[in-house]
Amino acid sequence: MKAKVTVMLKSGVLDPQGEAVRHALGALGFDGVDGVRQGKLIELDLADGTTQADVTAMCEKLLANTVIESYTIEM
Amino acid sequence: MKAKVTVMLKSGVLDPQGEAVRHALGALGFDGVDGVRQGKLIELDLADGTTQADVTAMCEKLLANTVIESYTIEM
Repeated sequence: MKAKVTVMLKSGVLDPQGEAVRHALGALGFDGVDGVRQGKLIELDLADGTTQADVTAMCEKLLANTVIESYTIEM
Repeated sequence: MKAKVTVMLKSGVLDPQGEAVRHALGALGFDGVDGVRQGKLIELDLADGTTQADVTAMCEKLLANTVIESYTIEM
């Protein structure tokens, strides 16, 4: 079974990587890009029987820094 | 308007970052993680009137390295 975890910086946390992308898009002539946030997408290939609670534990312990990042899980 | 771009390494391309996550999950006691692929999720805040073709051009020129990465766009 597959699970998708997306990890984004919480709103209010400065995102220098996203800001760099926004700046680069402007320099390439793409107008109208008002903001960019960059996060991580983690695709997990899991053994059958793995529960959403297991994936939540993985996020809390390793995949996300919950002080500054939020995560969502799709299974 | 918002657009979401996901950029993943193409299948067959080695993903050392994902492999490191898989190994770390195993070391933390999470069994049954057979594979991990890690990609990028880019959220764009765009001016009204920006078309999907514009976002495709952004992906081709900057956001994805199309030699080794594939991308999907959600608007």
